[in-house]
Amino acid sequence: MNRNPLLVVGSVALDSVKTPCGEVERAVGGSAVFFSAAACNMSAVVPIGVIGEDYPMDRLQNLKECGIDLTEIKQVSGKSFFWSGEYSEDFSSRETLVTELGVFENFDPVIPPHLTDSRCLFLGNIHPTVQSNVLKQMNRPQLIVCDTMNYWISQYKEELLALLHRVDILMVNDSEIRELTGESNLLCASRIVHSWGPKAVVVKKGEHGAVFFGTDWSFAVPGLLLDGVVDPTGAGDSFAGGFLGYLSSKEIFTREHYRKAMVYGTVMGSFAVESFSIDRLETISKQSILKRVTELRNLTSFD
Amino acid sequence: MNRNPLLVVGSVALDSVKTPCGEVERAVGGSAVFFSAAACNMSAVVPIGVIGEDYPMDRLQNLKECGIDLTEIKQVSGKSFFWSGEYSEDFSSRETLVTELGVFENFDPVIPPHLTDSRCLFLGNIHPTVQSNVLKQMNRPQLIVCDTMNYWISQYKEELLALLHRVDILMVNDSEIRELTGESNLLCASRIVHSWGPKAVVVKKGEHGAVFFGTDWSFAVPGLLLDGVVDPTGAGDSFAGGFLGYLSSKEIFTREHYRKAMVYGTVMGSFAVESFSIDRLETISKQSILKRVTELRNLTSFD
Repeated sequence: MNRNPLLVVGSVALDSVKTPCGEVERAVGGSAVFFSAAACNMSAVVPIGVIGEDYPMDRLQNLKECGIDLTEIKQVSGKSFFWSGEYSEDFSSRETLVTELGVFENFDPVIPPHLTDSRCLFLGNIHPTVQSNVLKQMNRPQLIVCDTMNYWISQYKEELLALLHRVDILMVNDSEIRELTGESNLLCASRIVHSWGPKAVVVKKGEHGAVFFGTDWSFAVPGLLLDGVVDPTGAGDSFAGGFLGYLSSKEIFTREHYRKAMVYGTVMGSFAVESFSIDRLETISKQSILKRVTELRNLTSFD
Repeated sequence: MNRNPLLVVGSVALDSVKTPCGEVERAVGGSAVFFSAAACNMSAVVPIGVIGEDYPMDRLQNLKECGIDLTEIKQVSGKSFFWSGEYSEDFSSRETLVTELGVFENFDPVIPPHLTDSRCLFLGNIHPTVQSNVLKQMNRPQLIVCDTMNYWISQYKEELLALLHRVDILMVNDSEIRELTGESNLLCASRIVHSWGPKAVVVKKGEHGAVFFGTDWSFAVPGLLLDGVVDPTGAGDSFAGGFLGYLSSKEIFTREHYRKAMVYGTVMGSFAVESFSIDRLETISKQSILKRVTELRNLTSFD
């Protein structure tokens, strides 16, 4: 394992979620938490985030036992970021019921000196200006991956494009890249993103899998076939955690490593959706991860 | 190449189609035509269908030059099946403007004695009772694959279930299997179909690829990444033609053959959408087919 820890900047939230399989109240969530819980199986990881006084500290201790360094999650006075949503009967859509930013509204991440040399950085879905401010504090990491969402695309596109100029991989879902580029064909859309700076785009498509678009090669992975989906919340961030956790454990980043990173992203995303919150991610063994990698190989290989 | 010809029973239509890339008037189409044009690269194929007096006979001659035996496409007095539709700007949906069944309304396929021993049979999307009547005329083929659509599922479910009992593989798209089984999870839906008789289900998902669900194993293939989609009409039937054309060329049907058949289905579907009607399918070389098989391997293989 590479000793240089993987850095993630993002939300640390409390989620109340209702799905056809049940519901959960104020469970730990947020992009930095799902990402870390997925990545920690393969790499040391340091999440940078902010929580309020209401955050359940015992749950954070569990994360610590997973090997996640929690010292950069700062507790401040106020309420934690709270999100509440409900999924449709077939999981195909969800409705956001409540979003209370709380202390996350003024999140101004500070990268401590001992972490400015981190080799791999994930910029979770936050304001593109905040993402840029993080980059300014770093000595250029070898690999910068960033996420975003429709709100930033429609309201802060200029800031987002300025950020993308300095990012290696944009990781978004299919509707986001279509909105960002105004192009419905994913291959054509990825070429537009390449022209803005990123050397690669990863497009996440939920149950349909994900596609890596390099400038002159691509890799596609279907979703694993699951019969026990409980809660899709956090699947994308868990994918990112598996993807970067795998890469962070490698000395160099080859095409074969990127392919395998897509596989690990898919596998970690598949675990994430099998429970509410990070419950399933916390209990995975290395063996069960390898078993799903093999499953994915059996699902896709021919000849 | 296996000498026993592949049999397909389905529509032989004239299609007027408008897409963001242009439009075409009364072009040859229909499930039996797309299927045959895709399958004929790998197998002898005999389409069974009916046309009216208005069918452009010169276009049929082109099909003959592709090696398709046209003697069982019967011309009768009346008008040919006509369909007209328009696709949305991003190809994600289409609106049917006109459906005139014409001579297809009373289509009552007769299997001539020399074809009742055919080894592989594709039952295109027609009334399930007509599909059953075809089966009754056959000595049990080794491999029976059938398609259907939402209309038959909602209006003639009993007849469809009676048919499925005698079918080896159901090949439908994702919305169809969900409607048929009332189950949104594809893995769970496939198990329901297995309980009705078919030993396998192939679910087509358009740009997201396709999945083969056997009773105890699965195979998933993503869509090829295309930047030149012109008209998606007939993609599903071309997939079926590639799938069964490949299998028909094999002496036995192993798991590895089914996997490869999914690959050939995907490749033939990718050609079909690159032009209106069967224009692209008619001009494919064996080399360009093999090139796309290699592309798909490069797109999906890891380690």
